[in-house]
Amino acid sequence: MGMLSEGLTQVLIPAAALVGIAFALLQWYLVSKVNVSGDFSNGYSGKLIEEEEDGIDSLEVSIKCAEIQNAISVGATSFLFTQYKYLSVFMGVFAAIIFFFLGSVKGFSTKSEPCTYSQGKLCKPALANAAFSTLAFLLGALTSVLSGFLGMKIATYANARTTLEARKGVGKAFITAFRSGAVMGFLLAANGLLVLYISIILFKIYYGDDWEGLYESITGYGLGGSSMALFGRVGGGIYTKAADVGADLVGKVERNIPEDDPRNPAVIADNVGDNVGDIAGMGSDLFGSYAEASCAALFVASISSIGISHDYTAMSYPLIISSVGIVVCLITTLFATDLSEIRDVSQIEPSLKRQLVVSTILMTVGIAMVSFFALPSEFTLFNFGTEKAVKNWHLFFCVTIGLWAGLVIGYTTEYYTSNAYSPVQDVADSCRTGAATNVIFGLALGYKSVIVPIFAIAIAIYVSFSLAAMYGIAVAALGMLSTIATGLAIDAYGPISDNAGGIAEMAGMSHKIRERTDALDAAGNTTAAIGKGFAIGSAALVSLALFGAFVSRAGINTVDVLTPKVFVGLIVGAMLPYWFSAMTMKSVGSAALKMVEEVRRQFNTIPGLMEGRAKPDYANCVKISTDASLREMIPPGALVMLTPLITGTLFGVETLAGVLAGSLVSGVQVAISASNTGGAWDNAKKYIEAGASEHAKSLGPKGSDAHKAAVIGDTIGDPLKDTSGPSLNILIKLMAVESLVFAPFFAAHGGLLFKFL
Amino acid sequence: MGMLSEGLTQVLIPAAALVGIAFALLQWYLVSKVNVSGDFSNGYSGKLIEEEEDGIDSLEVSIKCAEIQNAISVGATSFLFTQYKYLSVFMGVFAAIIFFFLGSVKGFSTKSEPCTYSQGKLCKPALANAAFSTLAFLLGALTSVLSGFLGMKIATYANARTTLEARKGVGKAFITAFRSGAVMGFLLAANGLLVLYISIILFKIYYGDDWEGLYESITGYGLGGSSMALFGRVGGGIYTKAADVGADLVGKVERNIPEDDPRNPAVIADNVGDNVGDIAGMGSDLFGSYAEASCAALFVASISSIGISHDYTAMSYPLIISSVGIVVCLITTLFATDLSEIRDVSQIEPSLKRQLVVSTILMTVGIAMVSFFALPSEFTLFNFGTEKAVKNWHLFFCVTIGLWAGLVIGYTTEYYTSNAYSPVQDVADSCRTGAATNVIFGLALGYKSVIVPIFAIAIAIYVSFSLAAMYGIAVAALGMLSTIATGLAIDAYGPISDNAGGIAEMAGMSHKIRERTDALDAAGNTTAAIGKGFAIGSAALVSLALFGAFVSRAGINTVDVLTPKVFVGLIVGAMLPYWFSAMTMKSVGSAALKMVEEVRRQFNTIPGLMEGRAKPDYANCVKISTDASLREMIPPGALVMLTPLITGTLFGVETLAGVLAGSLVSGVQVAISASNTGGAWDNAKKYIEAGASEHAKSLGPKGSDAHKAAVIGDTIGDPLKDTSGPSLNILIKLMAVESLVFAPFFAAHGGLLFKFL
Repeated sequence: MGMLSEGLTQVLIPAAALVGIAFALLQWYLVSKVNVSGDFSNGYSGKLIEEEEDGIDSLEVSIKCAEIQNAISVGATSFLFTQYKYLSVFMGVFAAIIFFFLGSVKGFSTKSEPCTYSQGKLCKPALANAAFSTLAFLLGALTSVLSGFLGMKIATYANARTTLEARKGVGKAFITAFRSGAVMGFLLAANGLLVLYISIILFKIYYGDDWEGLYESITGYGLGGSSMALFGRVGGGIYTKAADVGADLVGKVERNIPEDDPRNPAVIADNVGDNVGDIAGMGSDLFGSYAEASCAALFVASISSIGISHDYTAMSYPLIISSVGIVVCLITTLFATDLSEIRDVSQIEPSLKRQLVVSTILMTVGIAMVSFFALPSEFTLFNFGTEKAVKNWHLFFCVTIGLWAGLVIGYTTEYYTSNAYSPVQDVADSCRTGAATNVIFGLALGYKSVIVPIFAIAIAIYVSFSLAAMYGIAVAALGMLSTIATGLAIDAYGPISDNAGGIAEMAGMSHKIRERTDALDAAGNTTAAIGKGFAIGSAALVSLALFGAFVSRAGINTVDVLTPKVFVGLIVGAMLPYWFSAMTMKSVGSAALKMVEEVRRQFNTIPGLMEGRAKPDYANCVKISTDASLREMIPPGALVMLTPLITGTLFGVETLAGVLAGSLVSGVQVAISASNTGGAWDNAKKYIEAGASEHAKSLGPKGSDAHKAAVIGDTIGDPLKDTSGPSLNILIKLMAVESLVFAPFFAAHGGLLFKFL
Repeated sequence: MGMLSEGLTQVLIPAAALVGIAFALLQWYLVSKVNVSGDFSNGYSGKLIEEEEDGIDSLEVSIKCAEIQNAISVGATSFLFTQYKYLSVFMGVFAAIIFFFLGSVKGFSTKSEPCTYSQGKLCKPALANAAFSTLAFLLGALTSVLSGFLGMKIATYANARTTLEARKGVGKAFITAFRSGAVMGFLLAANGLLVLYISIILFKIYYGDDWEGLYESITGYGLGGSSMALFGRVGGGIYTKAADVGADLVGKVERNIPEDDPRNPAVIADNVGDNVGDIAGMGSDLFGSYAEASCAALFVASISSIGISHDYTAMSYPLIISSVGIVVCLITTLFATDLSEIRDVSQIEPSLKRQLVVSTILMTVGIAMVSFFALPSEFTLFNFGTEKAVKNWHLFFCVTIGLWAGLVIGYTTEYYTSNAYSPVQDVADSCRTGAATNVIFGLALGYKSVIVPIFAIAIAIYVSFSLAAMYGIAVAALGMLSTIATGLAIDAYGPISDNAGGIAEMAGMSHKIRERTDALDAAGNTTAAIGKGFAIGSAALVSLALFGAFVSRAGINTVDVLTPKVFVGLIVGAMLPYWFSAMTMKSVGSAALKMVEEVRRQFNTIPGLMEGRAKPDYANCVKISTDASLREMIPPGALVMLTPLITGTLFGVETLAGVLAGSLVSGVQVAISASNTGGAWDNAKKYIEAGASEHAKSLGPKGSDAHKAAVIGDTIGDPLKDTSGPSLNILIKLMAVESLVFAPFFAAHGGLLFKFL
């Protein structure tokens, strides 16, 4: 037994979660002090007005900002509610499928069964596992929806406030955007932990000593979280990029008006999209990763000696790691908000990057402490039919290498997507010869950017796999996700700044303000890419852990590439990311074409629109994005949700194992290269626009041939980096967690086709 | 024993090869009757002149064509000689490495060893295997070089003749281009078979009854063939696309002059490139596939009961299949050249497609006969440590399913890359909204186009693997390649037609002629894509067969994904195609940038160039392509050649097995999507240019905004479809065959790092 008592563990986890929530609320309160209502009766806001640098009428601007913010918020809320309405049908149907499939494992018998791993004991009936898995699925789905919704609410609450603060300087604006990101980060991390913790407590009332059944059922939580995340990412991604691409193609390319110009009919849809796609989608995505990593670790632990000997504290190791992570991130946040101040544009990116390093270093200490206090000095793990002796410091290395691999991935992503370094500058330079070379260089950059992350992931996998088998992989994933609150904060910071810039443009604020929000946004592009890097890296580890858990649960001890069943699965699995990307890219393309036609129509038929005398019909564009998103999210969603079910049922667990391994190793590459290519194109364009160096000036200014070529690259990158790329994480995770949840069914009734032949 | 006697087998194989060579020479003779010298003293050419439809001076045009053809031929020959000079150094060094590594397996001992598979017998010493493997490597390399060189010679001999025949109608031009393709197809197929056959006969003088050692050494032939093919494809691909992209970016986009306009300084380099890249590179590539598939099949057979009982005829089954293939293709060719006639542009593509169907149907009969006569009705195969009983009709199914899978891949490729169907038309349509949507739709098309080929490959693998283990896969690959003569003929037809069009433009021939060559070329784009589809499909099967042979030879019986060593190899292997593509894409991009600068410089500094009064400096552009190609082919080549050596030596055979499986399942997807995306963009552009339908007319004409967007897509597709995509086949095959050749070394001394840790 470790040194931490069961009672203390029972207190520590919820306490950390509550501290996280309290901290999030505090940040929210601080952001809320920025007044957007136009009512300056309280002293705080009044004082700030005096510091106003700009000569324009503050009241009018504030009111305009409030209006725009409101329009975005209403649009985003209405879209999410519509989406959730559709998803509730899906949730109901899929919950029934889970219950039916898992219930049928033992023919809906209500009798207790001999346990699979704790030999000689009796476990709860398969029907109970079916019921609780279904319940866990619904809980996960609801928590995911809540995470996405809260994120969106916070972001739409924060963006106009960031714009207004930008009048007072870049530092104030930065703090507002960053605090808002922190609200989301802490709320999601804490909420995810709390719901999972409470679920376990409640499930235990029924399960008692049957930890096998308990933690098997809990995996439904991960499935629920990730399946909502899938639709959130895909639907949100299609929404935002249809609007963005459509707005840019007519606005920037044809009409030569600035981004986010209020004359552009698609501009509101574009800004709504940032909040439903980048914010809500990403929130659900990372929550899903976190939920799945925890479930994978808990499941593997439950069938190891920790679970069999009912060591509660050691069993809770994954949750304690996350608890300490919240505290570490809290301290890290103070470095950005209170211990330092941004005075200049050039300090933004270093400050955000510092967050990553600080949280990683602090967390390493935290992991050491948790591993020492919570774990017994030695225990045995289940390793595909054999047993493996593990020491507590082995696990310290597993978690830590996951954490540091995340940092390496983050920094590599930054190197390939920030315009401070040569890769993006080379891409920008290739715009001299037009869009074609820009695209060729951008694609090559994306391909190249996979090398270091893959080696980082491979080393993390090798070390943690060798030290502690699949449990090692699962806790390595948790290590990478342990600083999720900070990761989400800097990730959410990006779209918030992007929106703040949009509001500044729409409210007609001065050029100086727009320059500040652009600087915030450029750093945000890079941190968004870093966030995507984390999401992909953790997805790779999580899905491998889930894959291992699935294989364990399905009762197979080897997945041998040298068998036709497995190899066929492997090559078809490696194809799935392409099939999925083809669907999502085409959806964005088609929806964007419709958007372009609508925007062109409005420009051509509404008199005075170009001159700013008439208002465009924003609602029509919102409707196009909404319809496209809801209609087009179904086929890729079905592909991901049905593949494990069909493969497992018809071809059996070995082929399914091949499919999972194939989609994992192939999907990671596609996802990383897509995200980084898109990020690089975006920042190459910003590099030319900002003209911060001699080289950049020689390519610009806005409207030059090189800039036009850069805009084309940026537009192509939109669906790559914000729709296809990030959705692929979910593809690989979700197929793995779904396989795990359905493993008892596949093991009992799977492989019909081969049985038949 | 089968019914075919050993003596008859000994006659049949070389006879088929000689028939193939004779047929190729006959076709060459028929092509050579088209006079390009300007000397019309013989009656044949004189008669054709009377049918001349065009009013322009024939003699002058003929002389001009002869001049241009000569310039292209000289350029291509000189490049290939320079390239071969570099490669001879590589060959020497690598031959030494093979000898040293394999010789060291038993410490350079000259004593005979107990055999690995035929227990109780004595086999030749490892040192002899090292020496003969080295010799086979050199033979394979020389045959590959010869194949590429002959292909280039034929193509440059044929292109002006095709142009001149186009004056008499599209049918005549088609026959000339097609016959020339057939020369290449038959010469390569027959030559590859003959050299392999003779090598085996000669090796046998030393090896006698030691078939294990004999066929182990023969695998060096495949390695030699494929390593030359790698450099040929990569070097040729960079050469041709640097010139093509460079020429297009300045000529078509900036200066608005037609493709292949003689005023464009890069035009000769572009045409030379078609011959060294598409023709020579592809010739080496498919020869490599053929050599490797044969070696894999022979090696696996040698350690099965066929080999152990020394059944010569059954052992020669792979070679007999290829022999029958040559005869089948010969008959098939007559369908296109003698049994039907092209009267209209619309008949070209169906006629080429018919070749595929006819050869496939005839070959199915041929396979049935060979399987019945050459094989014993039952024998046992080595299956990773166990034995597997196989019947002759099992092998019939294995070969046939490979053959038909090839047809499915070919037709799918046609569907996705021909502008007769909706996918390419949709891409063309997306050009309405500019280059960005064109690129998004094109990428989505490429991703989507992998689905059917992967299922075809997966089914072929499943069936042949289940029926006859790795031998089944190897003969399935041979089945797909059995109609290689026809495949190569229709594939080589593409670049020949492309060049014919170029020569027509440069010689200033009339619009009508150019329209005819364009129609030939459009069909050629599709057949080239089909050829690439075959190359990739066969590469997938070949590398799996080689992978299986490697694993057998390395003495491992499972490749379990659930071990850290293998999984790490898998994910890193899946990354390699991206790394490789990043290098080749960037190389093309950088070389194209240099080319653009040179072409711009010439247009700006040579007075009267634009007006056609002065000649451009073609040689400078040729030099840029040559230098870039030779310099830039080394890093990607080194990546492919060194990865198996380093992985095997440091990490051992299991990690290497993971790397091979990973690069195979990931590389196939990247290769197919890259080739088809590029082919689709090219034909979308041609669709708009040709304006054959109402829809196409609404997008055109040349110079419209939609057309400009299509040109950008076409340019981006160039390196994807002609450099990265096709080189990836070689990456996956070459790493596998190299691992197989070095397997004895890795098995004896590999995995240093893990031994050390």
